[in-house]
Amino acid sequence: MGDLTHFNEQGRAKMVDVSAKPETIRTATAQSSILLNDEIYEKIANQKMKKGDVLSVAQVAGIMASKNTSNIIPMCHPISLQGVNIAFDWVKEEQGYRLKIETEAKTKGSTGVEMEALTAASVTALTVYDMCKAIDKGMVIGPTFLVEKTGGVSSSDYKRQLNQTDKEE
Amino acid sequence: MGDLTHFNEQGRAKMVDVSAKPETIRTATAQSSILLNDEIYEKIANQKMKKGDVLSVAQVAGIMASKNTSNIIPMCHPISLQGVNIAFDWVKEEQGYRLKIETEAKTKGSTGVEMEALTAASVTALTVYDMCKAIDKGMVIGPTFLVEKTGGVSSSDYKRQLNQTDKEE
Amino acid sequence: MGDLTHFNEQGRAKMVDVSAKPETIRTATAQSSILLNDEIYEKIANQKMKKGDVLSVAQVAGIMASKNTSNIIPMCHPISLQGVNIAFDWVKEEQGYRLKIETEAKTKGSTGVEMEALTAASVTALTVYDMCKAIDKGMVIGPTFLVEKTGGVSSSDYKRQLNQTDKEE
Amino acid sequence: MGDLTHFNEQGRAKMVDVSAKPETIRTATAQSSILLNDEIYEKIANQKMKKGDVLSVAQVAGIMASKNTSNIIPMCHPISLQGVNIAFDWVKEEQGYRLKIETEAKTKGSTGVEMEALTAASVTALTVYDMCKAIDKGMVIGPTFLVEKTGGVSSSDYKRQLNQTDKEE
Amino acid sequence: MGDLTHFNEQGRAKMVDVSAKPETIRTATAQSSILLNDEIYEKIANQKMKKGDVLSVAQVAGIMASKNTSNIIPMCHPISLQGVNIAFDWVKEEQGYRLKIETEAKTKGSTGVEMEALTAASVTALTVYDMCKAIDKGMVIGPTFLVEKTGGVSSSDYKRQLNQTDKEE
Amino acid sequence: MGDLTHFNEQGRAKMVDVSAKPETIRTATAQSSILLNDEIYEKIANQKMKKGDVLSVAQVAGIMASKNTSNIIPMCHPISLQGVNIAFDWVKEEQGYRLKIETEAKTKGSTGVEMEALTAASVTALTVYDMCKAIDKGMVIGPTFLVEKTGGVSSSDYKRQLNQTDKEE
Repeated sequence: MGDLTHFNEQGRAKMVDVSAKPETIRTATAQSSILLNDEIYEKIANQKMKKGDVLSVAQVAGIMASKNTSNIIPMCHPISLQGVNIAFDWVKEEQGYRLKIETEAKTKGSTGVEMEALTAASVTALTVYDMCKAIDKGMVIGPTFLVEKTGGVSSSDYKRQLNQTDKEE
Repeated sequence: MGDLTHFNEQGRAKMVDVSAKPETIRTATAQSSILLNDEIYEKIANQKMKKGDVLSVAQVAGIMASKNTSNIIPMCHPISLQGVNIAFDWVKEEQGYRLKIETEAKTKGSTGVEMEALTAASVTALTVYDMCKAIDKGMVIGPTFLVEKTGGVSSSDYKRQLNQTDKEE
Repeated sequence: MGDLTHFNEQGRAKMVDVSAKPETIRTATAQSSILLNDEIYEKIANQKMKKGDVLSVAQVAGIMASKNTSNIIPMCHPISLQGVNIAFDWVKEEQGYRLKIETEAKTKGSTGVEMEALTAASVTALTVYDMCKAIDKGMVIGPTFLVEKTGGVSSSDYKRQLNQTDKEE
Repeated sequence: MGDLTHFNEQGRAKMVDVSAKPETIRTATAQSSILLNDEIYEKIANQKMKKGDVLSVAQVAGIMASKNTSNIIPMCHPISLQGVNIAFDWVKEEQGYRLKIETEAKTKGSTGVEMEALTAASVTALTVYDMCKAIDKGMVIGPTFLVEKTGGVSSSDYKRQLNQTDKEE
Repeated sequence: MGDLTHFNEQGRAKMVDVSAKPETIRTATAQSSILLNDEIYEKIANQKMKKGDVLSVAQVAGIMASKNTSNIIPMCHPISLQGVNIAFDWVKEEQGYRLKIETEAKTKGSTGVEMEALTAASVTALTVYDMCKAIDKGMVIGPTFLVEKTGGVSSSDYKRQLNQTDKEE
Repeated sequence: MGDLTHFNEQGRAKMVDVSAKPETIRTATAQSSILLNDEIYEKIANQKMKKGDVLSVAQVAGIMASKNTSNIIPMCHPISLQGVNIAFDWVKEEQGYRLKIETEAKTKGSTGVEMEALTAASVTALTVYDMCKAIDKGMVIGPTFLVEKTGGVSSSDYKRQLNQTDKEE
């Protein structure tokens, strides 16, 4: 099994040395969501007809945050992120509408991009909250989790179990 | 009822003018959490005995992110954040341990600090994920939500219903 | 007449002390533009029908840059920017289409917001360039200039002469 | 002909995947300018005799902005910029003096550096404006454009036509 | 006597709440230095005759860092820094030349600006090191210390004892 | 001997072109320290028993600053820092306790990481100052210097002479 790798001999946090790892193509997919009420859903949906919309701003925020991940997450390595994509999906639920946010990050480098995908998903959701909070502050963000990861060298690929995801959602 | 306030006459996003609002003391409390397995819980708990620990790093990340909120969330006003506090609480659940993260933000200004509290909570959880992902990538972040908000002028105070919170958790 | 105020006794740059100036409402309006060919114009115009578009991304970039102005322009004071708005206008010209970008910035503070408005306009134009450069790299940005400024204490309000603007455009 | 490449299947902006592109040496040269009156010209020129001067500060700002381009321009890839140079040239015109700003950016990577060169040029000009605006707010920035680009793989090299440049200036 | 104020009830770091403190004019003066060899001294001195010089770049870096202090120092409050000045002085010593760096920071706010002055001094010295390290890597930075502080409400003014400073230098 | 390499033909600063240099593993070790009184030493030492402590926050600050070095030091190249470690050591001195801070930075790239190590050391010390200044503002930071450097191509490895270090401390 793994171990908490971010600590040095003095028991303090460090940024792990990855200079010996080969550069490989690495991808990660993460998912978040935000649950909001019917009124907000209608407002966002109508906005889509106009030139700018909530989701457009949120998605720019998510992409910019993914590029800034190593400045936001202390022990995260700076990498040359080479591709980010964010997709939205609406699901009607009992308590309102859930906006599903799926993010994909990709790089050619010596560390994975899980944090870039997760940070993009979180910030996209936070931005939707920000732009709709004048209507209702009761929106709920998440669950937020890693869906899939490929390309690592020391660690194997990861794929979240579907039923596991279902249960949490 | 409110409206989507972040849009201008052309239907595009703008940063709303708050210069006419008086400066008042404003507070916000937000909550996030991360659900992790027994092994990670043990590792974090043991780490507490040492000089540095996962939660200590995560909490610094959360505080720094809250100060940086207006650079992360596009339509969020820059403010002089005047106090941030982050508290942790462990809850044993069927699937493992849930680390509850509660953040409080405070300012004297003309806009609220909900986004600062929510961003702090999200980034604290993301940092825990980052530092423990070598052991298990199946950790789940959230739900993340606003607990309370005071001090607004145009909008009334907000307090999340307890049973509402219970249900989502 | 004025003087180069950003220099200290040693002849070196400094950030001027404004702590004695009263806090007043200050506004600034700036204008930039980008001249692009018919093909790009059509692509941007068609894109408007979709959910995301070039102008939407460009305008988020402009707003975020205006909040970040004091980190981009060395001697510019950090301020609590309280409102930013960006408007677009198309003008058909002999060489193609000119996208006019007009930005308004507002604060209540002890320094003006000319640089915030000008930076927003410049970055909005740069972002349009970035998103369309795969089609044609011959786009031309500017002229970029201050249109109007109000609210200063030591300096008087400013309004650009119309014929002056006409001539440069 | 090219296409607007920054959009995903949902019609929303994305940061294009460049991980399959080979790393080559890439260069870009951009040009901006700022037109200012005789008084400012004299002040800047005299300042040159002293230890610090307007152009020195502006050029540091331009270099720092070029390194920060991917945080300023939303869909721009983070790259390891490996060289930046900024040169100035004065041209006497009918309405005053034009400070020409030419920037060169260079990297070894999988995307071009046009945006780094253009951002450097724009921010250099904005900084000159900032440091001289106490004397006259009527300065005009630009036109700003790409002069040359080399090293791409999928796209050919670019060189701006001289007469085209002449006309705009 | 004082106490370590940056900790919450859980024994973890927090950003102290200063919202109840009145806004007063606050100043701080800090000092750093860098000891370098004769060859570097000559190179910097000659450079002064030219248009750009090492000290000019270093001083821009110091000013920009002082504005960015709350993003560099985790528990430091964001403030609207209202004035920064950096002065240089050369002292011939037995082992070479010492470049003395004195920084002054000023704000009208509810927290002091000691960290802004100290950060400016440190980054100015680091930048000199960066620009001269191709000649000799043996340069030594510091000691770096607070010289004076005024304007606090809960804490009294501070002035470093002269003989104390002498001894450390 | 070397030369001031950061200047272009116009005598102005530039970011040196390193695109022709091969990518090699590069390391740098730097040292700083902060001298503080017995009371602060006791408070920090006692804090170690708790979950969060001064050194833990300071070390996170140092690591984050090292990743941000190219945004703090104007002519410093952006690099993909691949490992950072910070170690502490206490030394009892006549005037109190000296906290020694040793930082190691590592990358695989075309420029050295001296500035990343030195910036990490400086910011770690500044953060200790910030968190303890409520008790005593007389703490002194430094000397700060490079201890060792390996992996360069055009420049040879560097190792600070021990007696040289002793003398300065």
